[in-house]
Amino acid sequence: MLECIFYFHPTDPELPVSELKNDRFLRALMREPVDMTPVWMMRQAGRYLPEYRATREKAGSFLDLCKNPDLACEVTLQPLKRFPLDAAILFSDILTIPDAMGLGLYFGEGEGPKFERPVRSKADVDAIGVPDPEGELAYVMNAVRVIRRELHGEVPLIGFSGSPWTLATYMVEGGSTKNFALSKGMMFDQPALMHALLEKLADSVTSYLNAQIAAGAQAVMIFDTWGGVLTPRDYRDFSLSYMSRIIDGLTRENDGRKVPVILFSKGGALWLEQMADSGADALGLDWTIDIGDARKRVGDRVALQGNMDPCILYSSPERIRQEVAGILDSFGEGPGHVFNLGHGIHPEIPPEHAAAFIEAVHDLSRR
Amino acid sequence: MLECIFYFHPTDPELPVSELKNDRFLRALMREPVDMTPVWMMRQAGRYLPEYRATREKAGSFLDLCKNPDLACEVTLQPLKRFPLDAAILFSDILTIPDAMGLGLYFGEGEGPKFERPVRSKADVDAIGVPDPEGELAYVMNAVRVIRRELHGEVPLIGFSGSPWTLATYMVEGGSTKNFALSKGMMFDQPALMHALLEKLADSVTSYLNAQIAAGAQAVMIFDTWGGVLTPRDYRDFSLSYMSRIIDGLTRENDGRKVPVILFSKGGALWLEQMADSGADALGLDWTIDIGDARKRVGDRVALQGNMDPCILYSSPERIRQEVAGILDSFGEGPGHVFNLGHGIHPEIPPEHAAAFIEAVHDLSRR
Repeated sequence: MLECIFYFHPTDPELPVSELKNDRFLRALMREPVDMTPVWMMRQAGRYLPEYRATREKAGSFLDLCKNPDLACEVTLQPLKRFPLDAAILFSDILTIPDAMGLGLYFGEGEGPKFERPVRSKADVDAIGVPDPEGELAYVMNAVRVIRRELHGEVPLIGFSGSPWTLATYMVEGGSTKNFALSKGMMFDQPALMHALLEKLADSVTSYLNAQIAAGAQAVMIFDTWGGVLTPRDYRDFSLSYMSRIIDGLTRENDGRKVPVILFSKGGALWLEQMADSGADALGLDWTIDIGDARKRVGDRVALQGNMDPCILYSSPERIRQEVAGILDSFGEGPGHVFNLGHGIHPEIPPEHAAAFIEAVHDLSRR
Repeated sequence: MLECIFYFHPTDPELPVSELKNDRFLRALMREPVDMTPVWMMRQAGRYLPEYRATREKAGSFLDLCKNPDLACEVTLQPLKRFPLDAAILFSDILTIPDAMGLGLYFGEGEGPKFERPVRSKADVDAIGVPDPEGELAYVMNAVRVIRRELHGEVPLIGFSGSPWTLATYMVEGGSTKNFALSKGMMFDQPALMHALLEKLADSVTSYLNAQIAAGAQAVMIFDTWGGVLTPRDYRDFSLSYMSRIIDGLTRENDGRKVPVILFSKGGALWLEQMADSGADALGLDWTIDIGDARKRVGDRVALQGNMDPCILYSSPERIRQEVAGILDSFGEGPGHVFNLGHGIHPEIPPEHAAAFIEAVHDLSRR
């Protein structure tokens, strides 16, 4: 377990970064042999943990929490103090980039994210610049540096970004949406304008992830939350192509190791073959596909991360263990599996159920 | 165009049912040759039409509208007076069965459907009976009879039901849900109880659809709105198997013709092969799969219904026409295509765009 002391000097580059003590997450992503299947959970730093809720309370708003590197580090490390997780993931929001572009991100009471200034016209797109990761987004890089130091090399740190298409939907709609009327409207009626927006976003995400890597992120994940609402053609042209371009533009090294890239399109199980050609090292899977079938489809090209239905965590520890066994069995022998949920852990899950899940993965997969 | 006069005697069985003047929808579902590709729209009787909003206003609540056969007929026929659609679909709600089971369906102001008495325990499941389609649900059968008569044989009438799994989610959750915590919780922790509920629902849906067929429905569609939130294993065991059982139990004849069954699992494109083995004549597709690829996968076994992204209807008539052309082209030559949207038409769509869509399908597919 981590002994976490919150003394740090976020901007001092001289402090040493510890050797990595547990690298099975990075090894599995590179399809190298591991002693047991590594496991982490999307949203592992989140509302299901009472200590997270306490820090969130202390921080003020959700955005205040994201923008305070010390508190972001605190919540990032909380699940690692409870559970023997094999990776930490930067605590942040997927909408930091559009916020840094000046769109005015805010969270209304009991509502999802909103933007004061949505992007609807050519003038709006023209006005957007690529944010400086060490300028407007320095709080993210500072959080990465603080977390890396405070991890003391226990486990690797995952950096992340939303995908260009996912960011564009929020920017055009001005917030969450069920119908995607405005964002798909722009895509269908003004494809050149949507492409111009996506190009700026791809450049921004590339520079943002490269800065996270430079600051210490040892793997990066691209969250394409809304790729799955597209037709196969539009997914390829408006989401996947920009993610491939980002992957091509990444500096893939940190501390002398390759920095693996994980690509996760929610609802993307139909398109695994194309995703496997994106240059990503691993694909995130939701639970709508059997992981053994997914493996048959992508072969040796990529590792797979997933894919337990997060609702299983409402069940008893015995039922959770049974489900873990089934997924391990379906993946089968050989390298290239990072265990995860198929989506973020729900806020109502008892932490003991998360503990049972993580224990079951390690227990049942030990070689 | 229909000349629709609202004089009817809903319970008089002696009134003659006209010969069917346009049967290309039924022929396409049976994979027989047609002069042009038939088209209809999910939710074609709905809020995008000002005349629907006027009738809805007159009716009182949404449920009052569903439960009044004359007004249900009126809104069912409204889109047919505007557009040369190839099928009518009964105006009703998917939750009529649980309502008839005594769960107390209501719609809060600006909210989705809710149940006063959700189903959570063995006692709750035991208390449920199979509703009498000509008893508590007689208003639905009366609506079918009225609509059949008022259609004057212009186009066939589609009856429908929600799938057992879809109905069960609402019944257990007590309304709409994002997380499916309670319904999946029951499925994972008390599978026998969930199966008992699904068996009662399968019996109820079978008797409900058979009664719709007896009352005049010339095709039936099963809406599995929430099958796509399941793992492949759970989809097979908790959704598809009950839909297959329903299809086996249907009386598949009306006016000397076979009554085709359409199966639509939203998000089910991964499972088309299994769905094609269900006994259904046609599968509904959402837009996440290329219809040509879907056709390759199911071969000659079933017809396909779909699958334009409903968001295309926000675009210009030219763009709509271009998309229709692409889908027709992808489906290719030969029988077995019913054109539709991949989901219900959105309330904000201008009716002229729906007109352009329907015209494009007929125009571009004329043999």
